[in-house]
Amino acid sequence: MSVSTPQSAVTVLGLGPMGRALAGAFLDAGLAVTVWNRTRGRDRELVARGASGAPSPEAAVAASPLTVLCVVDYDAAHAIVRRDAVAAALKGRTLVNLTADTPARARDMGAWASAHGIGYLDGAIMTPSTTIGTPNAVFLHSGPEELYREHRAVLETLGGTHTHLGADVGRAASYDLALLDIFWTAMAGYAHALALAKAEGVTAQELAPFAKGISAILPPLFEQGAREADAGVFSGDINPITSAASSMRHIVQASEERGIDASVMRAAEGLARRVIGLGHGGDGFLRVTDLLNPR
Amino acid sequence: MSVSTPQSAVTVLGLGPMGRALAGAFLDAGLAVTVWNRTRGRDRELVARGASGAPSPEAAVAASPLTVLCVVDYDAAHAIVRRDAVAAALKGRTLVNLTADTPARARDMGAWASAHGIGYLDGAIMTPSTTIGTPNAVFLHSGPEELYREHRAVLETLGGTHTHLGADVGRAASYDLALLDIFWTAMAGYAHALALAKAEGVTAQELAPFAKGISAILPPLFEQGAREADAGVFSGDINPITSAASSMRHIVQASEERGIDASVMRAAEGLARRVIGLGHGGDGFLRVTDLLNPR
Repeated sequence: MSVSTPQSAVTVLGLGPMGRALAGAFLDAGLAVTVWNRTRGRDRELVARGASGAPSPEAAVAASPLTVLCVVDYDAAHAIVRRDAVAAALKGRTLVNLTADTPARARDMGAWASAHGIGYLDGAIMTPSTTIGTPNAVFLHSGPEELYREHRAVLETLGGTHTHLGADVGRAASYDLALLDIFWTAMAGYAHALALAKAEGVTAQELAPFAKGISAILPPLFEQGAREADAGVFSGDINPITSAASSMRHIVQASEERGIDASVMRAAEGLARRVIGLGHGGDGFLRVTDLLNPR
Repeated sequence: MSVSTPQSAVTVLGLGPMGRALAGAFLDAGLAVTVWNRTRGRDRELVARGASGAPSPEAAVAASPLTVLCVVDYDAAHAIVRRDAVAAALKGRTLVNLTADTPARARDMGAWASAHGIGYLDGAIMTPSTTIGTPNAVFLHSGPEELYREHRAVLETLGGTHTHLGADVGRAASYDLALLDIFWTAMAGYAHALALAKAEGVTAQELAPFAKGISAILPPLFEQGAREADAGVFSGDINPITSAASSMRHIVQASEERGIDASVMRAAEGLARRVIGLGHGGDGFLRVTDLLNPR
């Protein structure tokens, strides 16, 4: 997909693995790409492919109506763009911040941009840098709908699916964190399960086919759980939280008998026990959601 | 599938929801079913369908060459079968214990059975009682291969897939606990993600489609992670554990800013930080497996 009209110019700030992938996909789409990175030399391959290497962030953002920023965190993002010269150069232009951080910091950055006359969209990239430019990339965006519509065609040259989640600039970071919460907690469970299995003489590759079976039963439970959470009614008919807590206790016991740290499962069991202690032992496990965040 | 030859008789001890489902499936398969439960009256519907209600566990086990035991935990299991009268009645017969507990307790029960001349298989049911008698049921079995082969046809009348995992009677419980570990940790992550999303104005049903997307990326990561764990080499090229720890920190911060308990993620982050502190920050997150259970 080529959108190489004269006005299709884009600047990329930050040339880590993700920033380089973004700039590369823009180049592949035929856009005029300007790049800058704090550490020099990271732009070499991109410049060889046709990108312009800018000497400073202010020069970089002045080269395009749209700047995409993707650095390690908001401390790094602030150090690059929240300076007078860069703010002045960004005025009347649009900044799309694909740096991952908390919703509160995204909203703070949005307020700063507003105060400086800068159009601001905040986004999250849900897939690894290797997916950029392919159908497997997943981007979430938030901020003013009209601004998103204006830059959508350029953003979509990055490939994959792009979803605009709403006008609240904190929304992409909210989804991002919630999804990373599921992902990293599940991976922590998997790492622990592999350690427990190994202690019992079961190899990781023996367990893996069954572990994949577990991931296959999650989607319908997620869907049903979401309906229950929104309604505030958590059915425990098939699997009450008392039964979950009993399984969790077995896991903690079996781990600690083998000298395996069970701090993650201990914390999860603690939440379940608190729900039971509050008199909701007949509810399903997702009643924990209401314990964490009372309605 | 009917296996109603004269010798196809089976006893079911324990008539909770799962025990009743097991007995019901055996009846549907045309077997001669004897049932017993500590609390009287639970056998009413099964007796109406043709089961024999036994007055005591010893009378129940004496009625069949094969007894299936499924109660809430091993304390309950011990209270029923580890008594002189029941042990004497079980002598020369086979006990299949589908009660969930730790591998150590399964092996202890196996040793007790051996000492009393009782054939013993230990199993785990990985799916809810509603799946029993359907293709969706998943059973894991462990214990002497020959004994399993002898009773396999009767066990398979319970429907679904049956896998014999090996001669170590603790093996089914090991798989069971490791898989429940993945499942309940993932569910704890989902409950927390829903609470965090809600605090940021995102409903559970808005998040759910993306949460389902997360569960879809787990199987290939589980497979790759299993190969890495067995080899003891954890690649962090695409996603080093330092990056995981940074995401985890954002989740903890964003949660606690909203007053949401982040104890599960704090524990997971703690494991990641320990791996980094040991000098493995460039490895992938599953390096945690080696931290938990050094090779």
